[in-house]
Amino acid sequence: MTDARAGGERMHGWAADLFPICRSITGNGVRETLSYLQRIVPSMTLHEVPSGTVAFDWTVPDEWNISAAYIEDESGRRVVDFANNNLHVVGYSVPVDQWMTLAELQPHLHSLPDQPYGIPYITSYYVRRWGFCLAHAERELLAEGRYRVVIDSTLEPGSLTYGEVILPGREESEILLSTYVCHPSMANNELSGPVVTTALAEWLASLTDRRFTYRIVFVPETIGSIVYLSRHIASMKRNTISGFVVTCVGDDRAYTLLSSRHGDTLADRTAKLVMSRHAPGHASYSYLERGSDERQYCSPGVDLPVVSIMRSGYNSYPEYHTSLDDLSFISPEGLAGGYEAIRKCIELLEKNQVYRATTLCEPQLGKRGLYPTLGTRGSGYTVRSMTNVFAYADGTLDLVDIATRIGISADEAIAIAAQLERAGLIEIVNG
Amino acid sequence: MTDARAGGERMHGWAADLFPICRSITGNGVRETLSYLQRIVPSMTLHEVPSGTVAFDWTVPDEWNISAAYIEDESGRRVVDFANNNLHVVGYSVPVDQWMTLAELQPHLHSLPDQPYGIPYITSYYVRRWGFCLAHAERELLAEGRYRVVIDSTLEPGSLTYGEVILPGREESEILLSTYVCHPSMANNELSGPVVTTALAEWLASLTDRRFTYRIVFVPETIGSIVYLSRHIASMKRNTISGFVVTCVGDDRAYTLLSSRHGDTLADRTAKLVMSRHAPGHASYSYLERGSDERQYCSPGVDLPVVSIMRSGYNSYPEYHTSLDDLSFISPEGLAGGYEAIRKCIELLEKNQVYRATTLCEPQLGKRGLYPTLGTRGSGYTVRSMTNVFAYADGTLDLVDIATRIGISADEAIAIAAQLERAGLIEIVNG
Amino acid sequence: MTDARAGGERMHGWAADLFPICRSITGNGVRETLSYLQRIVPSMTLHEVPSGTVAFDWTVPDEWNISAAYIEDESGRRVVDFANNNLHVVGYSVPVDQWMTLAELQPHLHSLPDQPYGIPYITSYYVRRWGFCLAHAERELLAEGRYRVVIDSTLEPGSLTYGEVILPGREESEILLSTYVCHPSMANNELSGPVVTTALAEWLASLTDRRFTYRIVFVPETIGSIVYLSRHIASMKRNTISGFVVTCVGDDRAYTLLSSRHGDTLADRTAKLVMSRHAPGHASYSYLERGSDERQYCSPGVDLPVVSIMRSGYNSYPEYHTSLDDLSFISPEGLAGGYEAIRKCIELLEKNQVYRATTLCEPQLGKRGLYPTLGTRGSGYTVRSMTNVFAYADGTLDLVDIATRIGISADEAIAIAAQLERAGLIEIVNG
Repeated sequence: MTDARAGGERMHGWAADLFPICRSITGNGVRETLSYLQRIVPSMTLHEVPSGTVAFDWTVPDEWNISAAYIEDESGRRVVDFANNNLHVVGYSVPVDQWMTLAELQPHLHSLPDQPYGIPYITSYYVRRWGFCLAHAERELLAEGRYRVVIDSTLEPGSLTYGEVILPGREESEILLSTYVCHPSMANNELSGPVVTTALAEWLASLTDRRFTYRIVFVPETIGSIVYLSRHIASMKRNTISGFVVTCVGDDRAYTLLSSRHGDTLADRTAKLVMSRHAPGHASYSYLERGSDERQYCSPGVDLPVVSIMRSGYNSYPEYHTSLDDLSFISPEGLAGGYEAIRKCIELLEKNQVYRATTLCEPQLGKRGLYPTLGTRGSGYTVRSMTNVFAYADGTLDLVDIATRIGISADEAIAIAAQLERAGLIEIVNG
Repeated sequence: MTDARAGGERMHGWAADLFPICRSITGNGVRETLSYLQRIVPSMTLHEVPSGTVAFDWTVPDEWNISAAYIEDESGRRVVDFANNNLHVVGYSVPVDQWMTLAELQPHLHSLPDQPYGIPYITSYYVRRWGFCLAHAERELLAEGRYRVVIDSTLEPGSLTYGEVILPGREESEILLSTYVCHPSMANNELSGPVVTTALAEWLASLTDRRFTYRIVFVPETIGSIVYLSRHIASMKRNTISGFVVTCVGDDRAYTLLSSRHGDTLADRTAKLVMSRHAPGHASYSYLERGSDERQYCSPGVDLPVVSIMRSGYNSYPEYHTSLDDLSFISPEGLAGGYEAIRKCIELLEKNQVYRATTLCEPQLGKRGLYPTLGTRGSGYTVRSMTNVFAYADGTLDLVDIATRIGISADEAIAIAAQLERAGLIEIVNG
Repeated sequence: MTDARAGGERMHGWAADLFPICRSITGNGVRETLSYLQRIVPSMTLHEVPSGTVAFDWTVPDEWNISAAYIEDESGRRVVDFANNNLHVVGYSVPVDQWMTLAELQPHLHSLPDQPYGIPYITSYYVRRWGFCLAHAERELLAEGRYRVVIDSTLEPGSLTYGEVILPGREESEILLSTYVCHPSMANNELSGPVVTTALAEWLASLTDRRFTYRIVFVPETIGSIVYLSRHIASMKRNTISGFVVTCVGDDRAYTLLSSRHGDTLADRTAKLVMSRHAPGHASYSYLERGSDERQYCSPGVDLPVVSIMRSGYNSYPEYHTSLDDLSFISPEGLAGGYEAIRKCIELLEKNQVYRATTLCEPQLGKRGLYPTLGTRGSGYTVRSMTNVFAYADGTLDLVDIATRIGISADEAIAIAAQLERAGLIEIVNG
């Protein structure tokens, strides 16, 4: 088994362990999920933000927990049961226990006529209501009659929980990884995000020498990233040189690159270069197709250089936000591919520098053993990428720019720059 | 009948009234035309500029007036008669009354072999000569023999006449509308221009609250705009934020957008956005295809942000500058379409502002009733245009830029910006 | 015979005279070649740079001279003989005189299996070795047995020779022409370069009034331009406004334009405009396809605005760097075409100015006899290029920009600008 395959299997195992937990934007499901990941990345710290805390235009809502929920018919048969699938309950449903007719129940039911075998994922975080979600095929089987609906939940002041890993580097400049932990039993969106981010955090923590500081956050989507930004925006604006929202990185159907709002930040340029080789046919989305926490990180005035590298992106696959986005939708290969794409970006960023040639005119590569000593028709072309890196090391372009301009991969660029730097032919220009 | 249709009928009626008048770059035809339009827009002022007045590189020529002109054969039959069509005389023809042979007459005749049934429109403003224009088919019927040619005209010191409407607004910044009133009986080029401009002036005058000041000029083409600029260039350069040359706006074959010299002024951006929805298949001409008074307004050193929105533009339709460009070539629908296109630009400009988000991160639209409270798979997309406007309100882009970037119409952009501003979520950045 | 044809014949004659000389990066072949060219351009000065001289990262190597070289079989038959073709010896071969078996000889032989009738051009400037080059077809005929190999060469301290022509102009600003004189008997690459450059130098020397100073250098490739730059870089960086590497300008198969590293210098803009008319279907290469001394002139920190206009560029034709690139590969027409292309660039540069209109609005061309006095449907278009030049003479664009923008040729642009300047309608903006 290759390393990548083994890594994919491991991530898929974590996802399988976490799959049954009922997560929401607050509550014990989030805590249980983060505790599990903390065992893999022990430097993760958990943070609790009390209900009612104001963050920019938002307020942390009450905490929601649920122990059971079902719809029982007059015969006592449970026709819908949260115990079978936690998508059956509208997220943040208030408690209820009452008998009602099917007609009275219907307005509280949600299903997808076009996908009759999938249970939709529905929430109501900021307006108190209750509801059940079920496959449309099952809904159509509900007989007239009376039903008992029970939701045994609490929605009370508590706190919002998030996890944070800070891995210091030689420089204060930071790379941000952000993923979310608020979705119940769905696999590509979202468990692929936390497990790939955890694997990246584990790898980064294992490095003995990091150039950059890494800020890795596991938050509930939207409210969590807003709360997190409200606490850290000054230093994040000062230090963040690139960031990645990690979501929908688990299937193996496609690759997707979603640009930042500005579209040409270091994160964009890096991701474009890496993806051009890692996944040549990948889909490219502008920021107009945004859908996750880049909505906050790239918002006006926040303006962090954040992109999202995905496999099949949110809203682009039919299983999205239904029970059909299950563990069979993601795969070890899919997770490994998403992991590798982001890791390659980080590896390139760690080596990215603005370089300047140390000699005027071309250097004499031959005397350094870097050039064929016999001048033949094609001799100059055997080391073309090396001479190209030198030719563009003009003190204004960074390695990402140079590699993009001269058409080489991130790996080649890193190797050639290291070789030229060792030979004393290029030097780093300090910011 | 719709309002637009009614407006079109009304403009077409004005054109029909003005059609028989013999206009030129000076003379009583211009005065009569402006007096007619002044009855519709009473705030119009008329201005006389004496012959001999110097304007930049030009000098106002003598004033030309004509009462009759004809070619009579030996039998006394008038084979060409100005009374039938004022295109029959070369504009600015000096007086003549003499007998000559057909051979002697021929050099003074103008016709179009390729369009045998159209009378060409010919002028000689700055060299004294005389001539007649006629359908080529008629010219070929002229028998050998002697003809009496009579032109009862005067070409003497007098003045050049133009009309001006200034409608003050809250701001000193101005929008310029410029049209010309120097062509004899032709409909698309040019009566469509003055009648659409008059309708726009009437609408603008009716507004109780104008943000911008409107400078609306009715001038003879070229010499008129040059004279006008020579009198007002300092304030026009200081204040003009956008301008439109209004010509060829009466037929219903096509739409045309002619760019300013710079190609990316506010007028260009505004017109492009409006035309992308109002007339998606419109022709786009660069400034290299210029042909009317934008030649002056956009000239080096003048450099006003002026574009031209046309229906079938000058030189692009076979009837251009012939008697075939008559009242049947234009239509109420054509005039209404031209009027609407320019009016939409003005309406957008009146609302155009640079906006800045008032909160970091996305605002919580739900608590303001602007977002669905139930989170479903597509809920974010129902208000996508609103969140897009917010996401690009970064204090550098104006509403025209934002709408262009996010792909919404001018009307949508105006409505959403107003809604977000009312909700306190975006604010205007002062220049 | 046309002038161009006559010029082409003359250049071809020079190439024929120079063809048999055995050139290398140093040695008497270079001196003989330069002396020949000096007779055509007497202002050429010759310069000797001692072996061991350091130039940036390079050191001038020992001087190489050769009087004879052959491979003799046991019967005394010379199976390979330098006397027949100087490509038979690897450039810079050290002396040798010894008997060896075919097996021992083979590692010293170079041939092209894919081009069995061409002798390859091989050098070993910086590592001491010896070798022979031959047609692969002949190599395959070599019988087993013993061979005597003789190379009667010297490789000893001496000097590198280059030629320089400085033609002073009214301005200190310079135009650089650089060609190389280090290749033995090959015609397109390289004799076309020196002969076209010589013809250009002869023409430039004949001009009684030059605006720019011309720096014309005949150097061995790479080491020569590096040595030359090391001596003159300060003034060249200060003064060079455009430069051309002249190579591969002799065949008539194709035209090629190779951009500078920046891609948008004055030299690039000028060459693009000229080539768009002179050779509309020409190949366009980016700097990534560079292959000659532009590698030095455009290197980071040197950064001269240098392009290369070629016929069939190096590495793009199968005869390149073989004996098949002989006098039949180039032609008088080919040389004349290469010469004309570069001459047109120089003529345009000599006339290139930033122009500013002297009057606001359009000038009245009619009163200057520059515009038809009779206003007809197409009258404005007969002088369209003239009005376009005026319309873009805004004090920021130079004539190259204007011509490119309005779509006229260099010749038209020069003629119209001269006419407008004479009429006082545009004026030169000083730097």
